[in-house]
Amino acid sequence: MSDNQTRTELHELGEFRLIDKITEPIIIKNASTAQGVGDDAAVLNTDGKQLVVTTDLLLEGIHFDLTYHPLKHLGYKAVVVNLSDVYAMNAHPKQITVSIGVSKRFSLEDIEELYSGIYLACERFGVDLVGGDTSSSLTGAVISITAIGEAEAHKICYRSGAKENDLICVTGDLGSAYMGLQLLEREKKVLEGKSGMKPQFAGYDYILERFLKPEPRKPLIDLLEKEGIVPTSMIDISDGLSSELLHICKNSEVGCRVYIDKIPIDQITHKMANEMNVDPIVAALNGGEDFELLFTVPIEKHDVVAGMDGVSIVGHVVPQSNGPMLVAPQGEDIPITAQGWNAMTKTEEE
Amino acid sequence: MSDNQTRTELHELGEFRLIDKITEPIIIKNASTAQGVGDDAAVLNTDGKQLVVTTDLLLEGIHFDLTYHPLKHLGYKAVVVNLSDVYAMNAHPKQITVSIGVSKRFSLEDIEELYSGIYLACERFGVDLVGGDTSSSLTGAVISITAIGEAEAHKICYRSGAKENDLICVTGDLGSAYMGLQLLEREKKVLEGKSGMKPQFAGYDYILERFLKPEPRKPLIDLLEKEGIVPTSMIDISDGLSSELLHICKNSEVGCRVYIDKIPIDQITHKMANEMNVDPIVAALNGGEDFELLFTVPIEKHDVVAGMDGVSIVGHVVPQSNGPMLVAPQGEDIPITAQGWNAMTKTEEE
Repeated sequence: MSDNQTRTELHELGEFRLIDKITEPIIIKNASTAQGVGDDAAVLNTDGKQLVVTTDLLLEGIHFDLTYHPLKHLGYKAVVVNLSDVYAMNAHPKQITVSIGVSKRFSLEDIEELYSGIYLACERFGVDLVGGDTSSSLTGAVISITAIGEAEAHKICYRSGAKENDLICVTGDLGSAYMGLQLLEREKKVLEGKSGMKPQFAGYDYILERFLKPEPRKPLIDLLEKEGIVPTSMIDISDGLSSELLHICKNSEVGCRVYIDKIPIDQITHKMANEMNVDPIVAALNGGEDFELLFTVPIEKHDVVAGMDGVSIVGHVVPQSNGPMLVAPQGEDIPITAQGWNAMTKTEEE
Repeated sequence: MSDNQTRTELHELGEFRLIDKITEPIIIKNASTAQGVGDDAAVLNTDGKQLVVTTDLLLEGIHFDLTYHPLKHLGYKAVVVNLSDVYAMNAHPKQITVSIGVSKRFSLEDIEELYSGIYLACERFGVDLVGGDTSSSLTGAVISITAIGEAEAHKICYRSGAKENDLICVTGDLGSAYMGLQLLEREKKVLEGKSGMKPQFAGYDYILERFLKPEPRKPLIDLLEKEGIVPTSMIDISDGLSSELLHICKNSEVGCRVYIDKIPIDQITHKMANEMNVDPIVAALNGGEDFELLFTVPIEKHDVVAGMDGVSIVGHVVPQSNGPMLVAPQGEDIPITAQGWNAMTKTEEE
């Protein structure tokens, strides 16, 4: 380790400031690099379409818990979290590489189970597995996936294109994956050390599936294409709606007004949240892992977007000076603060 | 984990058979996928040049030991192992993504030290860092890097193109990284629990640097280009010469004759090997991590290749029926067997 005299603890910094620190020295050298760090994916120039590249690292104990995450679902999810980033660029995924590190706990059958989920996702979304690395791990399991996608240059959506008066839209519903995780953690605690008892999951399949086997929002990308709409900005909701709204506002140099009572929340999420004394809105804002898409479109597209299946209009873009704001049902403004549910923050809390 | 009745232990299988098992179900779906798994890198079609994509996962305790691997060197090496794969395709690296997982042991200063090595490699080889992921780790440190490179389609070198009578060539010298590792491990054991003592490294800088901070063989790629030579096959030497020769023979459906007394071994490697009662040829054949390039060229190129700085002609390609063979100094043939020094095998031995 470093002999350096100064020691700055990572939890003093948080993930986003760490990333800022790390990426500070970057100066782009190659003409083929159209967009480097700072969006859902990097963008590369080729003579034809542009390519997008994104990568995610999943670590046992941080991103998944093998006591309740079935290996097939885990493989599927590990691919999906990457495809979600590709779709968030309004691009189509084409290739992935998969690296895994596993301890002796894993048998060949376990690895085949994990890969069956990886291949299912590849099959479903038309992606080729083109490379990777397999290694022993002395400790926990590691899955690292990189996805490559393509799109015509003018269709790629960055976080930086939102304009004043644009409509703010989200797909599906929010907070459900977080409530699914809370349920899994609760049952794990209840059953710890008790054999023969079964977890109480009846009626909660929806939120469990949302956490254990999320689906990327390809249907939206297809629908946008069909309607001839290119969002002015887009991001996938992996750290919670608050965090993603702040990314769009910061990168687009705008503010936003998002109406709390417009945020789509499923009934099962409501029910579980009530049972656990959690505000479902907080789950939606700060929960994360929903892998829905958050995007902005010009206000002229209101009627088309309003008619889109599974899309909710939740607010609109305002000047940067107004700041990023939530609007409570009673009408008062609440400033949005960063409380992303990212792995770095999670460890801080523990 | 899997509820499956059968349980096949990974060490019964070995890395290469595990990879065969995992990759069996793959059917390429996209026209842009020119080459999937099975070479140093995947190859993607674009309208212009082809892209190559490769990825490597480095895990603490398996691939590196922080008690003797300086973080800056480790960052540099983590990039180099990927660039080496890109050069082995006769392509030029352009972009990398870097994902890291680190525990609370790491301070910001440690991470900056690691990235200073990553950026040094990027700077030296003209590569842009375009994306990544940072995460906490509950256990050891993890570094996962994906590199993207480009080359004109007709210049890309696969493992599969070696032809009968081709010359077999290697760059630099072999076995030095392995002896460097042995020295580090010896001094670590000697000093365990003893404070105030210093490791005995005097005179062995070369082999230490070969292990701790290897250089990818970009000069060869530039030289080949200058001389207008496209190797018929190429691979980087990461698992030892034996293992790489077997890959080329298998993929090209040929045999080989490699003369033991032509294998380039540095004097310091010889000296350390003698001191440790290791056969330096065994270090070269099975040691690994040298990151030299092994390549084949048509015999007509003999004079050009023989005049290339830092290139040794070590043998030639023969029909597949003759098998992959080493030729001892006294003239007898020794069949080459797979004893790759890969992470999976390493754990088996422990």
